[in-house]
Amino acid sequence: MFYHQFKLCTYISLLDTSARGFSYLANKLVYNQHGTPLRVVTVENETLNSVQKHEVVVKMLVAPVNPADINTIQGVYPIKPTLPAVPGFEGVGEVVEVGSDVSSLAVGDHVIPDTQHLGTWRNYGKFNHDVLMKVPKDIALTEISGITSNPCTAYRMLKDYNSLSPGDVVIQNGANSACGQNVIQIARHWGLKTINIVRNRDDIDKLKSYLKSLGADYVFTEEELRNISRDASIPKPKLALNCVGGNSATNLLRTLVSKGVMVTYGGMSREPVQIPTSAFIFKDITLRGHWMTRWQKENKESAERKSMMNELTEMMRTGKLAAPAHKFVTLKNFQEALMNTMSIQGKSGVKYYIDFRQ
Amino acid sequence: MFYHQFKLCTYISLLDTSARGFSYLANKLVYNQHGTPLRVVTVENETLNSVQKHEVVVKMLVAPVNPADINTIQGVYPIKPTLPAVPGFEGVGEVVEVGSDVSSLAVGDHVIPDTQHLGTWRNYGKFNHDVLMKVPKDIALTEISGITSNPCTAYRMLKDYNSLSPGDVVIQNGANSACGQNVIQIARHWGLKTINIVRNRDDIDKLKSYLKSLGADYVFTEEELRNISRDASIPKPKLALNCVGGNSATNLLRTLVSKGVMVTYGGMSREPVQIPTSAFIFKDITLRGHWMTRWQKENKESAERKSMMNELTEMMRTGKLAAPAHKFVTLKNFQEALMNTMSIQGKSGVKYYIDFRQ
Repeated sequence: MFYHQFKLCTYISLLDTSARGFSYLANKLVYNQHGTPLRVVTVENETLNSVQKHEVVVKMLVAPVNPADINTIQGVYPIKPTLPAVPGFEGVGEVVEVGSDVSSLAVGDHVIPDTQHLGTWRNYGKFNHDVLMKVPKDIALTEISGITSNPCTAYRMLKDYNSLSPGDVVIQNGANSACGQNVIQIARHWGLKTINIVRNRDDIDKLKSYLKSLGADYVFTEEELRNISRDASIPKPKLALNCVGGNSATNLLRTLVSKGVMVTYGGMSREPVQIPTSAFIFKDITLRGHWMTRWQKENKESAERKSMMNELTEMMRTGKLAAPAHKFVTLKNFQEALMNTMSIQGKSGVKYYIDFRQ
Repeated sequence: MFYHQFKLCTYISLLDTSARGFSYLANKLVYNQHGTPLRVVTVENETLNSVQKHEVVVKMLVAPVNPADINTIQGVYPIKPTLPAVPGFEGVGEVVEVGSDVSSLAVGDHVIPDTQHLGTWRNYGKFNHDVLMKVPKDIALTEISGITSNPCTAYRMLKDYNSLSPGDVVIQNGANSACGQNVIQIARHWGLKTINIVRNRDDIDKLKSYLKSLGADYVFTEEELRNISRDASIPKPKLALNCVGGNSATNLLRTLVSKGVMVTYGGMSREPVQIPTSAFIFKDITLRGHWMTRWQKENKESAERKSMMNELTEMMRTGKLAAPAHKFVTLKNFQEALMNTMSIQGKSGVKYYIDFRQ
């Protein structure tokens, strides 16, 4: 029902090599105002002329579609790009041209954004070299293109909020989300045990098996969660990761050890986090929040960031950190990705990528 | 209506010096089961015989009646004394006899409890010397008898949860409670500004003037609190102290700066603390809890504790830290203290003390 407005869009994705000194006929998604993504996002094309001294031209290869992208288009995310804007926080591309003053990047390098909002949903983009980060080329594009959000979020939440040692236990809700799957894999790599909470569904046994294949120690439904704090056979977590809110968050909290920490990084239920006073006073629970965008900004040049990127890329290279179940769409079919990311993200765990290679 | 059951109680408070080697005819409040304090607490008497080597006999002088005492009698507090029990966490007494192996205390010393639950609501008590702490004798009994709860709570909450410098701002609800008044005075002493939230009442101007006389920079009602986060003339707090919960806590939180901390130490509204997800993620708010009993236990021999006690007693000695408005009752009239502490604590700020000197 929202498709009619896109009928007139022309889709052109060819590199125009006929012009001198390279110029690129680029296709990009654009929104001129905030609103329902399917209503406000359209395809536009533009001609990119040759680079300035400090610029590079990037041919995008793959760009994930994240809930944060949707929220930004809707105008409900704290990052507000100047309009009109190209959506897309994440993606991986190949450098195809570099300006004369650029020494940090070369043609052929793979790069990801190293800034708050690059606008990755375009087949070609011209950027200042310092908003890009070079990444290894021997890592699958689905993995490396999404490294700065979910894998980094999972990594930092497991590392920064409570002191955990191998054998310690972490509990999380939304465990089959893209981030939740990263938590399971990184926790396993570090010797931490995970208790994973998911919503009940018809094929729950299949989902439980899948998460266990990633390294999950326990998988329970939200209904089962209500009772596990009374089950002495289940170890008590020191850390809870909450992306749901509402009752789910309150139930997570009940399982924690004294002096446990709950980190909130999402609110899929749209209900606030509700905490009994006694949990603060007598159980000494701490509640924190995590926003990867802020961390990346505050720690851009830090040793912690370099070390994290090295460890995560190595895990990806060796197959220890895989992207969640995913589906590719072409730029032309971007509406399918928008629509499904808005409705099923967190439920099925299927993540969409825009694939510019086709 | 609850008084009939006490009619048969005999009240005897005399030191019986007729017996050899000192024996004391003691009056104490006792409860044999948990329940409504006015129903379960009765007066009993006992004869205390001479001390053992490690014991001392203390003649109690003054003992505060705190909400925590009421909750303990009710059985809803995490500290559960063995029953039958003498109520009373706090109090100051004078040492009247010491055992032969006691060198840390002498007859005439003033002492306060240095243990989780001493049972102070008795005119004479025989205790092991190591559950008592010697305190200066030149400090008013109302101040020194309550030092370990409210003044220490206020002190630690202002010191331990966010790094504050002179000029920084603290917001608190329940600001006219016994603890709230300590927060105002200690904050003023340290050069911190306070925004104080109280419930509206007929004599609100009188209350505002009183809190300002203690050093409050701003005093607002709960209704006024809803708007102050939009008032640019009011500085943004780095720390919020919550003893109410419910909407009041949510409104406190809204006023905080990014990376602010809210410490919950009470829940007078009996409603949980409710936090929007965005406050955690995008504002990086931290929620903690404070329970002075745990801190005292975990830091019993610490330098921080000695330094805190020295600073607080010095503030009391120099008139910078006064007890809240209060009223004395005799042990015989303990019911008045129980009844009013249950109903008006936190509203009027009137604190009751049992006075054993009369």
